[in-house]
Amino acid sequence: MVKPPTVEDVALAAGVSRQTVSNVLNAPSVVKTSTRERVEQAIAELGYRRSAAARQLRTRRSSTIGIHLDPYAGGISGVVLDRFVHALTERAGDRGMRIQLYAARSPTEEIGRMGELVDGGEIDAVVITGTFHGDPRTDWLVDRGVPFVSFGRPWGEDDVADPAHLWVDVDGAAGTAAATRHAQSTAGSRIAFLGWPSGSGTGDDRERGWRNEMDARGDDAPRLTSDENVGHARSVVAAALASSHPRLDAIVCASDSLAIGAHLAATAAGRADLPVFGFDNTPAIEALGLSSVEQLPEKVAAGVLELMGPTGRSVDPRIPVAGTAHVLVEPRLVVR
Amino acid sequence: MVKPPTVEDVALAAGVSRQTVSNVLNAPSVVKTSTRERVEQAIAELGYRRSAAARQLRTRRSSTIGIHLDPYAGGISGVVLDRFVHALTERAGDRGMRIQLYAARSPTEEIGRMGELVDGGEIDAVVITGTFHGDPRTDWLVDRGVPFVSFGRPWGEDDVADPAHLWVDVDGAAGTAAATRHAQSTAGSRIAFLGWPSGSGTGDDRERGWRNEMDARGDDAPRLTSDENVGHARSVVAAALASSHPRLDAIVCASDSLAIGAHLAATAAGRADLPVFGFDNTPAIEALGLSSVEQLPEKVAAGVLELMGPTGRSVDPRIPVAGTAHVLVEPRLVVR
Repeated sequence: MVKPPTVEDVALAAGVSRQTVSNVLNAPSVVKTSTRERVEQAIAELGYRRSAAARQLRTRRSSTIGIHLDPYAGGISGVVLDRFVHALTERAGDRGMRIQLYAARSPTEEIGRMGELVDGGEIDAVVITGTFHGDPRTDWLVDRGVPFVSFGRPWGEDDVADPAHLWVDVDGAAGTAAATRHAQSTAGSRIAFLGWPSGSGTGDDRERGWRNEMDARGDDAPRLTSDENVGHARSVVAAALASSHPRLDAIVCASDSLAIGAHLAATAAGRADLPVFGFDNTPAIEALGLSSVEQLPEKVAAGVLELMGPTGRSVDPRIPVAGTAHVLVEPRLVVR
Repeated sequence: MVKPPTVEDVALAAGVSRQTVSNVLNAPSVVKTSTRERVEQAIAELGYRRSAAARQLRTRRSSTIGIHLDPYAGGISGVVLDRFVHALTERAGDRGMRIQLYAARSPTEEIGRMGELVDGGEIDAVVITGTFHGDPRTDWLVDRGVPFVSFGRPWGEDDVADPAHLWVDVDGAAGTAAATRHAQSTAGSRIAFLGWPSGSGTGDDRERGWRNEMDARGDDAPRLTSDENVGHARSVVAAALASSHPRLDAIVCASDSLAIGAHLAATAAGRADLPVFGFDNTPAIEALGLSSVEQLPEKVAAGVLELMGPTGRSVDPRIPVAGTAHVLVEPRLVVR
């Protein structure tokens, strides 16, 4: 039986190095056309065939992480998730991992898309965002054994000591606490909080930071409530400014949208210099020169990839890497 | 020789429909666990094996489109590209195509990343953004025969009748023309333009729309220049408001950042009601209640996929599909 031709035989016949033959097989674009044609001719003449193992090596994809993009719904704060996707793409690329996007309009639809992508071998791991208590996506991912990390807490009984899965989140209470302390030390003791209706994990967490600092000093001021809407926030704050006695010294807000509404109300009431603190540090709040809590999405992305492990493939979502099951990012108050 | 078992034999043995067997083989996540186990047992007992063609069909990846995400650099207008990526992800998903992100910090690095992804068979087509005259990326893509569409014109000799490649863009001149006409009919004849330094394709295009409408009516007002920076725009407009005689009736701007700077300057000069027109209709300009030209990124995404053809695989970038080599999206003036 004749020994099958090797890469060396091809290199010798074409008058090139082994590396050039390898390049023609694996990354043809880096080889000059004339050289590539000579090598391809030698391959054809000798009847060279790569081994299955070599073929498999060549077609092995990088690890690919799936991430869902919400439909764009306007609004100011969506930019935080977009910054997170930017940062995740850059850092994953540095590790040789890929980011694949998918769209879905509901958790059920998202589960369907994840199922297709996992079954088709198109993604090896998932990053989910916008988690909520009783989230069906995390149950599904745990059941299916798909490696995943969430940006957002499980919001369960004990997220830190006994988490339902790996997660990264921003410490919202620490952010509003920092804003409240800054207001207390520079503006006075009547620091109102403008938040969303109670009941959302994220919103209640941000309210807690304000309330703890107020209680710690025995300060008192109203807790105002608005939907995530500049116009609504503006009318709520206009009413509060007209009726609060003694007058408010500052307003700490659960989002930049709320803060912009508060600032517009204060300006219309002749109090353009009322200190207002936003949350998210979006381009809109920066353009208006208002202070805000910066979520540091780049640190969240780094935390996600750290928890995911070196390849994103072999992670059991219930078994933390290096003893860590979560990363809680401390946000930064940007004072303007 | 015994005839090999078929899908029908498996369905009969498991007491399910052919479709259910097909689901177990192709998308097991959609099948109830108990049913899946019964089908899998029938497959094992009968020794059913899928044909190579069926396997290939199953493992054939969807077409995947690569798109570059710029590093996040702050600023207001980045949101337009993010909206475009959102819309592209949704519409591509509807067509069974995938979006894969990659990061790069320069055109040269971007060419390197595209080369890796194309050579590795990870992407089948590319969408590039932020094109400029003499862009090395488009030359590279044309040379390599990689199917691509750009969001942004080639900015060559004759982009429309003889384009260098398939492209989709927003008609910037039409947008500023609409803003200028609206200002002329509601505010007066002294409509200034606030733009970037001359020399950028996008900026010059937006200036042209304003100038044409001013020339058409014989109106005259200054052309002001600022970097893409709220603070710089504010100081430029403050100086113009202080020195312009007769006073300005409105300002049409090349971007929302410039418009916010103009509005802040006008407010500080006691002219908070000076009509200011932005470009991009970002959440920031909406929060301030200012008018702006909306780029309609969703229409751009639809145009890109239309030019790319049904699969994104078989397109020669120099040969238009259905006689069309470009899509020029008419933007919409949003008056507030």
